[in-house]
Amino acid sequence: MATLRLVTLRLLNGSSSLSRCLFPRTQIFTVRAFSAAMSPPSTAVVYDQHGPPDSVTRVTELPPVEIKENDVCVRMLAAPINPSDINRIEGVYPVRPPVPAVGGYEGVGVVHSMGAAVKNFSPGDWVIPSPPSSGTWQTYVVNEQNMWHKIDKGTPIEYAATITVNPLSALRMLEDFMDLKAGDAIVQNGATSIVGQCLIQLARIRGIHSINIIRDRAGSDEIKETLQKFGADEVFTESQLELKNVKGLLAKIPEPALGFNCVGGNPASLVLKFLRQGGTMVTYGGMSKKPITISTSSFIFKDLSLRGFWLQKWMSSDKAIQCRNMIDYLLGLAREGKLTYAMELAPFSDFHSALDKALGKQGSQPKQVIKF
Amino acid sequence: MATLRLVTLRLLNGSSSLSRCLFPRTQIFTVRAFSAAMSPPSTAVVYDQHGPPDSVTRVTELPPVEIKENDVCVRMLAAPINPSDINRIEGVYPVRPPVPAVGGYEGVGVVHSMGAAVKNFSPGDWVIPSPPSSGTWQTYVVNEQNMWHKIDKGTPIEYAATITVNPLSALRMLEDFMDLKAGDAIVQNGATSIVGQCLIQLARIRGIHSINIIRDRAGSDEIKETLQKFGADEVFTESQLELKNVKGLLAKIPEPALGFNCVGGNPASLVLKFLRQGGTMVTYGGMSKKPITISTSSFIFKDLSLRGFWLQKWMSSDKAIQCRNMIDYLLGLAREGKLTYAMELAPFSDFHSALDKALGKQGSQPKQVIKF
Repeated sequence: MATLRLVTLRLLNGSSSLSRCLFPRTQIFTVRAFSAAMSPPSTAVVYDQHGPPDSVTRVTELPPVEIKENDVCVRMLAAPINPSDINRIEGVYPVRPPVPAVGGYEGVGVVHSMGAAVKNFSPGDWVIPSPPSSGTWQTYVVNEQNMWHKIDKGTPIEYAATITVNPLSALRMLEDFMDLKAGDAIVQNGATSIVGQCLIQLARIRGIHSINIIRDRAGSDEIKETLQKFGADEVFTESQLELKNVKGLLAKIPEPALGFNCVGGNPASLVLKFLRQGGTMVTYGGMSKKPITISTSSFIFKDLSLRGFWLQKWMSSDKAIQCRNMIDYLLGLAREGKLTYAMELAPFSDFHSALDKALGKQGSQPKQVIKF
Repeated sequence: MATLRLVTLRLLNGSSSLSRCLFPRTQIFTVRAFSAAMSPPSTAVVYDQHGPPDSVTRVTELPPVEIKENDVCVRMLAAPINPSDINRIEGVYPVRPPVPAVGGYEGVGVVHSMGAAVKNFSPGDWVIPSPPSSGTWQTYVVNEQNMWHKIDKGTPIEYAATITVNPLSALRMLEDFMDLKAGDAIVQNGATSIVGQCLIQLARIRGIHSINIIRDRAGSDEIKETLQKFGADEVFTESQLELKNVKGLLAKIPEPALGFNCVGGNPASLVLKFLRQGGTMVTYGGMSKKPITISTSSFIFKDLSLRGFWLQKWMSSDKAIQCRNMIDYLLGLAREGKLTYAMELAPFSDFHSALDKALGKQGSQPKQVIKF
């Protein structure tokens, strides 16, 4: 039964041996106790069933696992709490590890020890799981060497830990749907999200203008200023766009050909209103939990296209072979200070308060990154 | 003012001289009265302002126009009343001739006379305007020779008159959005529309299965039978699809990759429910006048794409250079009886009763085709 569960985990993760670190460690340990090279025990955030993350997760110690000849054992340094991590624990994410499981999907760590056949890593190297893989919320992760990507140790750990899920999504969405040139424009809602902030900065680097829509809220003027510092050309609150001709607001910016939606409902309609003839809106989130509504004439006469983006699917495509080059590019930008976004490092001992912040229990908070 | 209006007409129609036949004939005639070769006077359906077609249209005689050396004067045989013709008269169509104008957009005629430089046409040839062009609801149309396409005289006139707007739309939608192979499947709502009937038959010719959604109404069993005779694999009324797993209804048909929507509202959602992962829905009409609503997860996790199709836009694209080959292919199918759809020929003298039928005043009626 334990073996069966393990096999299922491996298949779903698309990674072979990270799953060994997930669960059930006890069972594996009993059959592999004769092996010489073993990881240290791992302190992990485990959930035994799907449900509200604050009630189903617990921090517990998992026993050592075998380090096989091609394995690298990594001491985790940091891992973020992303909305998709929360959805996986809730059981509402379409692809998720079977329970019991360790939370988390991306992060950064330092090489602790390796199997005999590992040549390209040394203890002390910084690595990230690439592609990302379930089970990063724990102190030690063992996985095959080809699942780890060595990165520059000069990278701030909070960026190293978060470079894949949000920044890579922004990069792919900016490049994969339309061939934009310098001088073109994009429009997005949810512009204060991390993907939103990355889109602004990556667009700016390419000379692409950005039109940004944010919620009406206290402090929206400060938020506008922050986004403008990132390079946003225009920032509008939703209520500012309650007019027929939103395009009249664009003084020197061309009508955008590409739009991004992570909200749904009316803010999605606002993105559509800005798009030019033949434009495309890419949906990558639905924060309002409301659907997207679009008129027939938008399709026929305005020739709009509606698409979707999901990094986890992209990661399983042929294109993902270039993923590590893209990660290195993004990490380089982060080191140069050209790609920044607000995060808060939380000690692992405070995991549950960080989780509460990530769950929105304390209002709007920066991205929570666990520091092990 | 008259000249300006004429120039505008020419630009909008994308055809140079059909506009001369439209309006204002009187003004043109006064400046061209010295010319030798003239068309006969033309009896035309004219509207002087936009509005309800039954009240703004009138049948009137337009004076002769000059036949220049590259012109062909055609005596019209038949022309349909399409929904887009009605929308143009109502003034709600995004591209429409400025008023006053002659109604109609496609049709078939017989060559009556030609200018001296015309070599490839002879009196008696059957021709259609290709690409279609405004002003076909009249007895004589003069246009440059390159605007006419000679067709096989063995074609039933009602098919010759209607081969472009609906059948060509069906053909392009079936071929331009996805590379379907024999054994694949499509799904559509509004399956009783002419485009819908054409899609079924064109799909069947390619070995592609079709899943068809129709309104609940009296006589739906007979309609199912008719569509099945055309080659429909499955025909469902909307109420039959009020269940969670519609795909469970597909016994031997694969999940469709491509869907077509000409209704909007719930019937559009039904098309989306049938589509497989990564599928595309093409919207080409909105008979319910309701928008399309789609969930965020359909875009992200199901990777659906929503697109639109508009023949008039396609006609102005590079691809339209092949348009006449496609028309010949479709006319061939019509002559062989492989492409059929219900039409009713109405004498021109009964234009306004045919218009009433086209406006839906007498319930569901076959496509009205005016016979001159």
